[in-house]
Amino acid sequence: MEIDYSKIKVIGFDADDTLWVNETYFREAEIAFCNLMSEYETPNKTDQELFKMEMKNLPIYGYGIKAFVLSMVEMALEISNYNVSQQTIQSILEIGKNMLEKPVELLDGVEEVLKKLSKRYRLILATKGDLLDQERKLEKSGLTDYFHHIEVMSDKQQANYSKLLNHLDIHPSEFLMIGNSLKSDILPLVHLKAHAVHVPFHTTWAHEQVTEKETNGKTYKTIASLRELLNILN
Amino acid sequence: MEIDYSKIKVIGFDADDTLWVNETYFREAEIAFCNLMSEYETPNKTDQELFKMEMKNLPIYGYGIKAFVLSMVEMALEISNYNVSQQTIQSILEIGKNMLEKPVELLDGVEEVLKKLSKRYRLILATKGDLLDQERKLEKSGLTDYFHHIEVMSDKQQANYSKLLNHLDIHPSEFLMIGNSLKSDILPLVHLKAHAVHVPFHTTWAHEQVTEKETNGKTYKTIASLRELLNILN
Repeated sequence: MEIDYSKIKVIGFDADDTLWVNETYFREAEIAFCNLMSEYETPNKTDQELFKMEMKNLPIYGYGIKAFVLSMVEMALEISNYNVSQQTIQSILEIGKNMLEKPVELLDGVEEVLKKLSKRYRLILATKGDLLDQERKLEKSGLTDYFHHIEVMSDKQQANYSKLLNHLDIHPSEFLMIGNSLKSDILPLVHLKAHAVHVPFHTTWAHEQVTEKETNGKTYKTIASLRELLNILN
Repeated sequence: MEIDYSKIKVIGFDADDTLWVNETYFREAEIAFCNLMSEYETPNKTDQELFKMEMKNLPIYGYGIKAFVLSMVEMALEISNYNVSQQTIQSILEIGKNMLEKPVELLDGVEEVLKKLSKRYRLILATKGDLLDQERKLEKSGLTDYFHHIEVMSDKQQANYSKLLNHLDIHPSEFLMIGNSLKSDILPLVHLKAHAVHVPFHTTWAHEQVTEKETNGKTYKTIASLRELLNILN
């Protein structure tokens, strides 16, 4: 079935792992954390327990690096039976600060695609995580001028997107969302009868993974690189 | 000099310590932290050092409770010469979680004022801090329906307000900001030639304090209670 993109006025772009590298830095941080905990547990067990801690804290801390660091500190205390050294706690804080100071590494074709599409559509950045961190990454990326608006969302569920479309004052059929996460960037939009294009990234956080059952029969397009957008929206 | 408020279309409200209690909870948390550190330092010294640590971390962590907790952990390590106990680190994390779960306590007259003003003006909430935390507080407050829009800002400097006014597509003379912080809610607006009304709260974070020189000759109104807004904007 061909999808009709002719009504689209506004295109929303996810940021992390859609425009620039992000999950890779979390994976590196997790490996560093597992190493710090290696005298207490296997890397595999530490990794699993850290994920559980993040999920436990998600409703109260939300997304982003500061939440991640607080969960690592809490997990280090717990997994070590409160034996973890003070220097190791310091090292965990440093993992977080390093993450917040990473350079922004754009994915292939991003600038070209935004440059072309910004001439014909209103582009917005729709991302979740730490507000300051996301604003800083956008600034470092040099992409600010292509976007009409940056929307940092506390979550990316259907209700959050409904609010966003209301705020943008557009009909779902006029909105296209582009992102790497089926759970956060694609399925909520499909359910709202808006448009969505999936651009997978090679690494996906466990929390963002969905089952085949959830995507079965859903209408959205998958492309291998952001550049292919230019063929779709011609 | 009488100020002319007749052109105002949009009113921005600061949230913390303008609509509901906030700084009080930070003060309580600081006292709890100083108690935890009492074997290493006097409360006065701990408090001063914590403030310095927050200022050092502000550019990287931004505002909000998660940033505050991370600074407390780092300060505890430093002030104790890395002797602070693992249980104390855990207690610091708990101080933060308690803060995030505090009920929202509305200040006097808030609901009445918003109810009346929302009939004649477009009201927005303009606050800084953790995105999720601020959204949650707004929800708990029961005030959501009075606001057209919630803007969580990474900072409240003149440039941030310029962007906000652009986004709202209004002239500075059509905007009135209400808040308890001269530094964050009043002076940037005065410099933009927008309107501002100051409603002091009994406690002000050191970071938000300004000198008399900064306010000298600036045109803004100060009221003792939010209710007085109804007299000004009649």
